[in-house]
Amino acid sequence: MKVSIIGGGAWGATLGQLLIDNNHEVLIYDINESFVNKINQEHIHPFFNDALSKNLLATKDLEEALKFSNYLLLAVPTKVMRSVLKTINQKITNKTYFINVSKGIEPDTFKRVSEIVTEEIEADKLAGFAVLTGPSHAEEVIKRKLTLLTVASLNQSFAEELQVIFSNETYMRVYTSNDLIGCEVGGAAKNAIAVVSGIATGLDLGENARAALITRGILEIVRIVEVYGGKRDTAFGLTGVGDLIVTASSENSRNFKAGKKIGQGMAVEQIFSSEAQTIEGIRSIYALHQLAVSKDMSLPIISTAYKVIYESLSIKDAMNELLTRTLKSEKIE
Amino acid sequence: MKVSIIGGGAWGATLGQLLIDNNHEVLIYDINESFVNKINQEHIHPFFNDALSKNLLATKDLEEALKFSNYLLLAVPTKVMRSVLKTINQKITNKTYFINVSKGIEPDTFKRVSEIVTEEIEADKLAGFAVLTGPSHAEEVIKRKLTLLTVASLNQSFAEELQVIFSNETYMRVYTSNDLIGCEVGGAAKNAIAVVSGIATGLDLGENARAALITRGILEIVRIVEVYGGKRDTAFGLTGVGDLIVTASSENSRNFKAGKKIGQGMAVEQIFSSEAQTIEGIRSIYALHQLAVSKDMSLPIISTAYKVIYESLSIKDAMNELLTRTLKSEKIE
Repeated sequence: MKVSIIGGGAWGATLGQLLIDNNHEVLIYDINESFVNKINQEHIHPFFNDALSKNLLATKDLEEALKFSNYLLLAVPTKVMRSVLKTINQKITNKTYFINVSKGIEPDTFKRVSEIVTEEIEADKLAGFAVLTGPSHAEEVIKRKLTLLTVASLNQSFAEELQVIFSNETYMRVYTSNDLIGCEVGGAAKNAIAVVSGIATGLDLGENARAALITRGILEIVRIVEVYGGKRDTAFGLTGVGDLIVTASSENSRNFKAGKKIGQGMAVEQIFSSEAQTIEGIRSIYALHQLAVSKDMSLPIISTAYKVIYESLSIKDAMNELLTRTLKSEKIE
Repeated sequence: MKVSIIGGGAWGATLGQLLIDNNHEVLIYDINESFVNKINQEHIHPFFNDALSKNLLATKDLEEALKFSNYLLLAVPTKVMRSVLKTINQKITNKTYFINVSKGIEPDTFKRVSEIVTEEIEADKLAGFAVLTGPSHAEEVIKRKLTLLTVASLNQSFAEELQVIFSNETYMRVYTSNDLIGCEVGGAAKNAIAVVSGIATGLDLGENARAALITRGILEIVRIVEVYGGKRDTAFGLTGVGDLIVTASSENSRNFKAGKKIGQGMAVEQIFSSEAQTIEGIRSIYALHQLAVSKDMSLPIISTAYKVIYESLSIKDAMNELLTRTLKSEKIE
């Protein structure tokens, strides 16, 4: 079958390669002409050196990508998701399936991508929505290392169709979940905690303290998933804790690395301007802190990270306070 | 106050240093004369180069250690726990408090250390029992890096007493728990999963696959804690998931490192004979697999590890089978 990938960053291109491996046809859309040319002409991606298939093609013409297929894999940063969807809605005429792979929550509205899709794509053009998520460094998937993902949709047969499309016998297993909310929110929340884990690492707090922070962070992920109406068990599964584990201590994670730089004293503006890739976790910290305030919900780790990043609270004081004052009891709410 | 530490390995000696920092008096007992001499004369421990306090003293005379204090901190490997306790019972006359810091389950009986203590120490000599556990590399505590531990006892006031004794303002926070079973069992079970994480690392399966394995491993820890009568939330807290996080990817963890060597093809006998320190996780895998068989309980990861370690199942096949066949659904039982 044919799939159009909206966004040719590391993860979008990697999933394109996976679909080519699985004998599907792919066209990647990206706004960045140099990405498009590199994929089409050199068959490599700017972010890693692994050879891409010559069958993996890219375009900077959105209309061409939309005409190519009515399966759109959304691999753009959450911050541009709504405007991209507005444009897509204007240009499509057929019923279209949307598969989101970005992990974020919209600031100010706290909305999930599935909600944004429902708002921006007219009902008669929207055939289905799913999220594909789980513990997955693109750097490993592109090398065809064994990876387990989860696909969740309100439409079980759509989820099962995607499970078949994305799975293969050699390196990719995809499981289905009926907890769309839990999968969407867990991915966004874990990115926030991964940034905090990076901050602790940058501060050289040590592995003992970092493990304590992550453990308490997992409880915040659970609380967030439950507030949205997702399932507690989803938060503890592959798309929550599993994805946090792969992110929270890895130099392959942009979120972890950004946190580490903050912990080492770099200003957030500097990180934003120096990174070619979006750091969803820093934006998730913003959105989730706002959510905590609006719902009168306690998220001590995320709110402390918010104050460090957006209100210039001293990091060292903040982290020590978190670990010594807030964690008074080993209570799980 | 005075505390006798039974076992002068890395963790016993480190906790001794912590107690000295907290202005208590400590006498370490160890069977190994070279350890004792090194601590007394050179004020360092054979396993790390950090200077110990000159007030931290050791003896190879068990009776001297038992006379020193009626607070005994048990820091010996689980495999010798019962025989050490038999000897202690013969030699003590006063009511004595026991604080266990080793993380294991007795093979064949599947008993927790608190049960072994109750069986081996006569009731009129047993003043109280507690377990002190949580995410803690000795290598960091000895450098006075911030660490959070949990102390659990059936006797709440004893737990609170120990909380005060072990906590300090600079680097050690101790929380109390009333779930003795969950804390004891979680520590043993996480060591088993840490070995498996090491095996996956030794096989170079990648971070994505390892995160998936650990996530499923957490569910086995939860199942084990619940079978023993511990609380699910304890398994997800500092003494379960938290301790797994600090162990499952760290070169500071003996369990992780032993698993890694197995993954790289080293025979288990060779690891046992080459390691000066006990690898509790490998013994826990044995005990917990036996438990699973006897209780007809499904622990696919631990049982696969058992077959690899004790029945020469091909590791690569076993791990791939685990990740591809067993993990059919993202279901949490």
